[in-house]
Amino acid sequence: MSRVLIIGAGGVSSVVVKKCAMLPEYFSEIHLASRTVSKCEKLQEEAGKDRVVGVYSVDADNVPELVELINKVKPSLVINVALPYQDLTIMDACLETGVHYLDTANYEPKDEAKFQYSWQWAYQDRFKEAGLMALLGSGFDPGVTNVYTAYAAKHYFDEIHYLDIVDCNGGDHGQAFATNFNPEINIREITQRGKYWENGEWHETDPISVRKDLDYPGVGVRASYLLFHEELESLVKHFPTLKRARFWMTFGDAYLNHLRVLEGIGMTSIEPIDYNGQKIAPLEFLKAVLPNPGSLAEGYEGKTCIGTYITGMKDGKEKTIFIYNNCDHAVCYEEVGAQAVSYTTGVPAMIGAMLMLENIWMKPGVWNMEQFDPDPMMERLNQYGLPWQVVENIESPFTR
Amino acid sequence: MSRVLIIGAGGVSSVVVKKCAMLPEYFSEIHLASRTVSKCEKLQEEAGKDRVVGVYSVDADNVPELVELINKVKPSLVINVALPYQDLTIMDACLETGVHYLDTANYEPKDEAKFQYSWQWAYQDRFKEAGLMALLGSGFDPGVTNVYTAYAAKHYFDEIHYLDIVDCNGGDHGQAFATNFNPEINIREITQRGKYWENGEWHETDPISVRKDLDYPGVGVRASYLLFHEELESLVKHFPTLKRARFWMTFGDAYLNHLRVLEGIGMTSIEPIDYNGQKIAPLEFLKAVLPNPGSLAEGYEGKTCIGTYITGMKDGKEKTIFIYNNCDHAVCYEEVGAQAVSYTTGVPAMIGAMLMLENIWMKPGVWNMEQFDPDPMMERLNQYGLPWQVVENIESPFTR
Repeated sequence: MSRVLIIGAGGVSSVVVKKCAMLPEYFSEIHLASRTVSKCEKLQEEAGKDRVVGVYSVDADNVPELVELINKVKPSLVINVALPYQDLTIMDACLETGVHYLDTANYEPKDEAKFQYSWQWAYQDRFKEAGLMALLGSGFDPGVTNVYTAYAAKHYFDEIHYLDIVDCNGGDHGQAFATNFNPEINIREITQRGKYWENGEWHETDPISVRKDLDYPGVGVRASYLLFHEELESLVKHFPTLKRARFWMTFGDAYLNHLRVLEGIGMTSIEPIDYNGQKIAPLEFLKAVLPNPGSLAEGYEGKTCIGTYITGMKDGKEKTIFIYNNCDHAVCYEEVGAQAVSYTTGVPAMIGAMLMLENIWMKPGVWNMEQFDPDPMMERLNQYGLPWQVVENIESPFTR
Repeated sequence: MSRVLIIGAGGVSSVVVKKCAMLPEYFSEIHLASRTVSKCEKLQEEAGKDRVVGVYSVDADNVPELVELINKVKPSLVINVALPYQDLTIMDACLETGVHYLDTANYEPKDEAKFQYSWQWAYQDRFKEAGLMALLGSGFDPGVTNVYTAYAAKHYFDEIHYLDIVDCNGGDHGQAFATNFNPEINIREITQRGKYWENGEWHETDPISVRKDLDYPGVGVRASYLLFHEELESLVKHFPTLKRARFWMTFGDAYLNHLRVLEGIGMTSIEPIDYNGQKIAPLEFLKAVLPNPGSLAEGYEGKTCIGTYITGMKDGKEKTIFIYNNCDHAVCYEEVGAQAVSYTTGVPAMIGAMLMLENIWMKPGVWNMEQFDPDPMMERLNQYGLPWQVVENIESPFTR
């Protein structure tokens, strides 16, 4: 019996639901809940009513409502693909009902654009004592990038020293401006100050101020910008040999121009303004104006390339490897009706859930992905749609 | 006795109120009404309670409310500096109460970005029969530009052939992006298709697609773009010898980039979108996010230059003249606490009202500015803060 309750019904959820639905031997019963039950019903229709057996409306900010729902469904595991603001309430509800937990992005408070693991790591003792497990950040980045790092450390190095995670979306959705996942979360992430780890401490940069042109396999050369990404926080903690850890993401000039204009006039602010006597955060309104990320999938062309450059020592010599995945927007659309940015997040969430339900990755407490043996995840990535490549003994494109 | 009722309490209104307040011999009593009475009270405070003797809240979309207010105040003239959407309701109320009318911008329906005089010209017979006068477009452009044209036709030419109105704001308000008057009206005006008159018919252009670099006295060379402006409609009607009539406005690259981004993502649309179950027009929300044009005045530096190039025949020879005004933002701020864009609109409204109250410009019906003798207005422009220059026998910067 492996009944799962999936909370959230956006683009990532649609991938998780459909991938789980294809695997009844691992996910015997799927239940789906979201604030807007009609979104769940639509996904249920698409995935099949025999697979998604229950749909529910739930306010994921409300612990008693979540507890009531979990007690009704009695799942083995809650898969949280709602908003990061809701991680803590869902963890609270899992603790209260005695159910395992998995998510894809770490908690950040709604009124402050600041994501970090401290809030969720603080649940370590409570989960351990309850004999429950919480798997944090089981998406692509964070998630697969953590596993790539652990895999490299295990199989290719005696000690890893330099880590550069690179995230390129080489796709074209044909819109003037759109974000590939929740615009609110996307813009909050990009407009905050950059941050990277070096020589035992964090260094800050102005937002989108450090640029490097990188050549991505399957895509080509793209301008890439240093920004802070949450997996850096857990990776430098769990791989203390790292001398430097950075994260890079590609943005086109048009995208950045849009972002700068919108930020400059205050449209990306989370500080509510007065609109005819109502308080509305400009970013919330902008989100309503921009295309729904799910709507970009049809006709989306090109590939993503997300990977990890790692430099370290092996048998007394320094070397660099690059582990990466290419994911094709159109192929994802054909398989599950989603674009690659949703697909690359949703598939690792499904695999993480599978590993927990199979007791392959299962221990009480709150864990990041790199704290488990990477091999079973790496095997299943090849099997379920996110095959990876290792390029060995290359010259690092990153100077030291 | 010359009691006036001013409707509207924005940036232009503040100039009209203060200029009228300085001239008790022409404006014995000033009454001020707006949807938001606190804005009226603030202006009353600034202009003096002995001069602004009454403030009122009124919904200018509501004819019975307007009628009640006008009957209470019993003014000789209503000066409409509210939104252009409200011209017709205020004209209706003036007809019903037997009061003269003046405005600075022609009517456009709120749900369609399309301004034209037809709606207001249709009141001609009703005003004439009631023995009432309506003076339309008594601002700078429209307004002073119409008077410049009439003045040129009267004193410098036997026949005028080519008209190019040029509007340059060479000022710097130090904001990333802001509009100099009501952002909603400003953006509606600029994002619509361009239009000019040539050889007896209107020709359309894509928005902001025709550019010319012009040298403005007191400012310098600025990129200027062809757009439609309302005075063209009345000027080609009242000067049928015109072979071509165009309007040009300066925009900086940064301004246009902002506008293109905002338009591209739909933020300038007047079509309401669904925001959490409410219908909100993106442009209305944008207006709430952008700086209030009135707030730009402090520290605003530089000058405006608005003028009229006219080419025509005199004594059998072709010649070109340029009539223009330079207005300094900081000087306006010092005089009335406003920026030059509000000042150049508000002063001609005050002068138009003065000419009506003095019976210098007074005849029943609905009239545009160029239909009166331009000389009294030209004299008073020099006297009340908007001195003009005529440059004669220059080479036209406009090719034919």
